[in-house]
Amino acid sequence: MKPVKLHPGRERRILQGHRWIFSNEISNSLSDFEPGSWVEIFSHKGVPLGTGYINPRSLIAVRLVCPAGQKPSRDYFHSLLRKAIARRAEFLYPDSQCYRAVYGESDGLPGLVVDRYGDMVVYQITTLGMSLMEPLVQELLMEIMQPRVLVFRHDAQVRTLEGLPLEKGIAFGEIPPEHWVDVDGIAFQVSPLEGQKTGLFLDQRDNRQALRRWVRGKKVLDLFCYNGAWSLSAALGGAEEVVGVDQSADAIAQAANNALRNGVESSCRFQRDEVFHFLKGANRHAFDVVIVDPPAFVKTRSALAEAKKGYTDLNRRALMALKPGGILVSCSCSYHLNESLFREMLLQAAQAAGRQLRLLEARGQAMDHPVLLSMPETHYLKCYFLEAF
Amino acid sequence: MKPVKLHPGRERRILQGHRWIFSNEISNSLSDFEPGSWVEIFSHKGVPLGTGYINPRSLIAVRLVCPAGQKPSRDYFHSLLRKAIARRAEFLYPDSQCYRAVYGESDGLPGLVVDRYGDMVVYQITTLGMSLMEPLVQELLMEIMQPRVLVFRHDAQVRTLEGLPLEKGIAFGEIPPEHWVDVDGIAFQVSPLEGQKTGLFLDQRDNRQALRRWVRGKKVLDLFCYNGAWSLSAALGGAEEVVGVDQSADAIAQAANNALRNGVESSCRFQRDEVFHFLKGANRHAFDVVIVDPPAFVKTRSALAEAKKGYTDLNRRALMALKPGGILVSCSCSYHLNESLFREMLLQAAQAAGRQLRLLEARGQAMDHPVLLSMPETHYLKCYFLEAF
Repeated sequence: MKPVKLHPGRERRILQGHRWIFSNEISNSLSDFEPGSWVEIFSHKGVPLGTGYINPRSLIAVRLVCPAGQKPSRDYFHSLLRKAIARRAEFLYPDSQCYRAVYGESDGLPGLVVDRYGDMVVYQITTLGMSLMEPLVQELLMEIMQPRVLVFRHDAQVRTLEGLPLEKGIAFGEIPPEHWVDVDGIAFQVSPLEGQKTGLFLDQRDNRQALRRWVRGKKVLDLFCYNGAWSLSAALGGAEEVVGVDQSADAIAQAANNALRNGVESSCRFQRDEVFHFLKGANRHAFDVVIVDPPAFVKTRSALAEAKKGYTDLNRRALMALKPGGILVSCSCSYHLNESLFREMLLQAAQAAGRQLRLLEARGQAMDHPVLLSMPETHYLKCYFLEAF
Repeated sequence: MKPVKLHPGRERRILQGHRWIFSNEISNSLSDFEPGSWVEIFSHKGVPLGTGYINPRSLIAVRLVCPAGQKPSRDYFHSLLRKAIARRAEFLYPDSQCYRAVYGESDGLPGLVVDRYGDMVVYQITTLGMSLMEPLVQELLMEIMQPRVLVFRHDAQVRTLEGLPLEKGIAFGEIPPEHWVDVDGIAFQVSPLEGQKTGLFLDQRDNRQALRRWVRGKKVLDLFCYNGAWSLSAALGGAEEVVGVDQSADAIAQAANNALRNGVESSCRFQRDEVFHFLKGANRHAFDVVIVDPPAFVKTRSALAEAKKGYTDLNRRALMALKPGGILVSCSCSYHLNESLFREMLLQAAQAAGRQLRLLEARGQAMDHPVLLSMPETHYLKCYFLEAF
């Protein structure tokens, strides 16, 4: 393994537990490295910091995998995967067959994400280094999780930054015509090769559970409802009436189908519409609870200012549709819109709508998408429950 | 009412919903004002911003009470109090007889805090302006809450900044020899004139509830256990063994008494000891869960650096007593140690202990101590659930 030597002082973040080394922190010439190869990392003074894989074409040049003294062996990967899966199965969600089993850096496996949906397992790889380990990853997932179907979703845009193609497919088994799973008491249809991401937005599961206590007898609006996950939580939490809005006809059909399966079709109504268009036509103060959970508006730092305006306008309009004293559930999954900007955005939206906001709960990602305290980059989801008066 | 005129641009924060005006933001001469009197606030250009009370000797010179167009009448106070109390009783904690009924600025009543413990009500006033309204406050609390006992706890140090004396006593009724209340299924003895604050640290109630899912069959250490609230939650959550440590003999006696009353005396052991001394003598990796909930180390901004060291050292030692994979529940109620400094402190503690931290939940104050989004000063409590590996 070739050595990578850091510039002076650049070991500090790594010693605190961060796992990324940026290209401008490395004193060697990057062109000497085989893309995707394993490297040993040293501080400027020669202190060993661990082993990782390198991609000279990426801004994040090295991702640390093992601490100093460990090798990225089959046994090491086996142990990390087994631990990550056991944490979910035994510790975080012992009553569930659905969870994010591996969440990249937070589980010590940069570039790898694995979701379990009952006996179907879906994984995605986002880095070149992990991509070269894919045969081992497949083998270990089969050995440890023993799924009936193993699917790969290598279609995250971020792969192009690593020079990887976008693709998806079946690694093992066959996808049944219909696959239903239970997430926290709600039945969902999973179509692992269709739709956004790997399917169910498990990152919001704890937040959807938290919604239930606020909706009994209420009129709830679910914006960007996708397959209806928030709507179903509201309906099962006793909401009197739920309106879900999404511009995708497919999403609306899925949501309606999920509502039927969960026996809440009488309280849920799904409407195909563009969200801003819907809000422009909505009555003032028509809802007791409004859920704003848009797709990421900010994919890059440069688009941040524009995106923040979009979030502000969206939340302002959502507030106008909300009764005085009602609850706004506002989310952002954009990493670049950090918590402080998110709060600022909410304040601006509230001021523009002539409202004040009391924070009931400041929530984040579900526990199977854990934040590594030493890597702020592992935190992306904000989900605030706010009382708007 | 005399007018207060702000310097140019200083209305911005107020228009967003902040409720404090600092002495250096006012263009009038402060010595012209009667301490504690009502004033009308105007922007530099003469736009009315609302009505508040003034204290020229305080750095927070004016606290806004009413929006422009409202008067601080009996009706106005009655309406705010009634709404604040109804929010808790009907909306936030409908099954509970105990809650913080009024939380100062967040309920539009700066300088006033009211706690309900069943038919006993305890209030505290921390500002001169509110102090002058005390007869009305008493009258309205009696009228709306109809308590059997009304107690005042005017012993928060912050009163001295307003030129107010420290005192406590009974405004109405008689304190029974023993007063037991139920908070979320746990019986506590309330002695409203003794001990710290008004009694039960209701601000941690939601966090203590959240603890329960992590402790079944576990060995739990509760540092600064005071009257045992965390310990009892752990025991009732199914912990196998709970050790509570506090240096106060009174606290230890109360905790043991509370444990007995709740039928968990066999799993709880309370030990009188200074916490650092206890940790120095504790075995490595002896506990599955360690709760660190110290009293505020930072009372002023100037003491911050020193206090941060104290928190770091405390959490480092707590981590050493924690098993690999165990859970650290780390809290700080110091406003000046903000969330970002709190995280930094935890990272330093983890690094010094040779551990890594995964965030399970980043929690704050209970919902009856709501944060006003426009006033970061209303947020003080951090309570993180962390997996330490």
